[in-house]
Amino acid sequence: MLIARVVGSAVATIKADSLRGVKLLVVRSATPADELVGEPFVAVDAVGAGQGELVLVARGSAGRQTGPTQDAPIDAVIMAILDSLEVAGDVTFRKS
Amino acid sequence: MLIARVVGSAVATIKADSLRGVKLLVVRSATPADELVGEPFVAVDAVGAGQGELVLVARGSAGRQTGPTQDAPIDAVIMAILDSLEVAGDVTFRKS
Amino acid sequence: MLIARVVGSAVATIKADSLRGVKLLVVRSATPADELVGEPFVAVDAVGAGQGELVLVARGSAGRQTGPTQDAPIDAVIMAILDSLEVAGDVTFRKS
Amino acid sequence: MLIARVVGSAVATIKADSLRGVKLLVVRSATPADELVGEPFVAVDAVGAGQGELVLVARGSAGRQTGPTQDAPIDAVIMAILDSLEVAGDVTFRKS
Amino acid sequence: MLIARVVGSAVATIKADSLRGVKLLVVRSATPADELVGEPFVAVDAVGAGQGELVLVARGSAGRQTGPTQDAPIDAVIMAILDSLEVAGDVTFRKS
Repeated sequence: MLIARVVGSAVATIKADSLRGVKLLVVRSATPADELVGEPFVAVDAVGAGQGELVLVARGSAGRQTGPTQDAPIDAVIMAILDSLEVAGDVTFRKS
Repeated sequence: MLIARVVGSAVATIKADSLRGVKLLVVRSATPADELVGEPFVAVDAVGAGQGELVLVARGSAGRQTGPTQDAPIDAVIMAILDSLEVAGDVTFRKS
Repeated sequence: MLIARVVGSAVATIKADSLRGVKLLVVRSATPADELVGEPFVAVDAVGAGQGELVLVARGSAGRQTGPTQDAPIDAVIMAILDSLEVAGDVTFRKS
Repeated sequence: MLIARVVGSAVATIKADSLRGVKLLVVRSATPADELVGEPFVAVDAVGAGQGELVLVARGSAGRQTGPTQDAPIDAVIMAILDSLEVAGDVTFRKS
Repeated sequence: MLIARVVGSAVATIKADSLRGVKLLVVRSATPADELVGEPFVAVDAVGAGQGELVLVARGSAGRQTGPTQDAPIDAVIMAILDSLEVAGDVTFRKS
């Protein structure tokens, strides 16, 4: 799963019916030290993520494996909010 | 999902039977500020998107999760038309 | 779906049983103006595409959504032959 | 499947229900000679992999084909711990 | 499907149960003229491919569409051994 930061939000009134009520957030992939690296894209929020939070994003058909996204044309879902990341013995990120 | 702009259309008379009647649009990925960045590719339109509109494109098996694309050899579908995008507190795009 | 040109063909006698009789074509992704850009790869032809034709290729599980490719270890299928492409109001390709 | 090294771990209290109890490890893709090359990402551990081990990671829907990850929003799973790798007749890696 | 050459093999005693008995080969993507271009990765062999052979690799969920790989956490399978490749009228590869 992609380490990513929530950087914004998207609004779309005209959308596939199965997307009624889903929350669309703009995310960018980030390093374990919370530095932004990737291009922005949009994911459905399935866990109540807030702006600026470091999260995990599952892509592809995994995007449909949560309550709000089942059978929907979704290829990216926020499925976890990170408390901490440790790499090579160092804590590179801890949720403030 | 990919932020993309509708930049054109494609016509194909000879195609898989399950594609009868689907609308094929040419799209390019774009930044949240609506600048084109990606290579053109083709997606099925499931929401009535028009030329020049900023949309969301779901790819992979998600492409088959809308009425017109079920069980069809489709790996990209336009599943939302963006009203607005906000990044880092700034509204980077608003549908005119 | 990928805009691609048929650039060749592949022959494989030893292959998964479910691939008996399928036609394997070499394709390369192309711009809407029919210029080759991508690395060659192999796709199953599901619509009778010929050498040099500009086609649409669906990848991933979409590759299995046509008669000849159902339940086969296939991740790319030619599912349409392009008549024309229009981008930003200009016809960039028309089948000769 | 990706050759990758386990380089760290991730903790997320708030996550999709189906992820209760899964172990989240940070991995980076590596060469057959165990040199790190890729960006860090997170995979579920399905085989008891330890820090620093060279493993195989399956991505996409394959991520859901193990006991702990079934029907979960998971797109990457560690499904093997490498004993050895041989390339062009040379043993490029052997588990110490 | 990816044109690739078998360049080595991988051994993993500790692995997901569904992988018992599968043959793990190291492959690298190649040009139609059999020049290596891609990063090494591991695929399951479903057709008895040998070292140095030019093969076709299907990735993603297609990896599970062969007897040995059904329902296994596999995202890449060797599903054909190439006899020959022809591009732009030239035979670029013929199995010796």
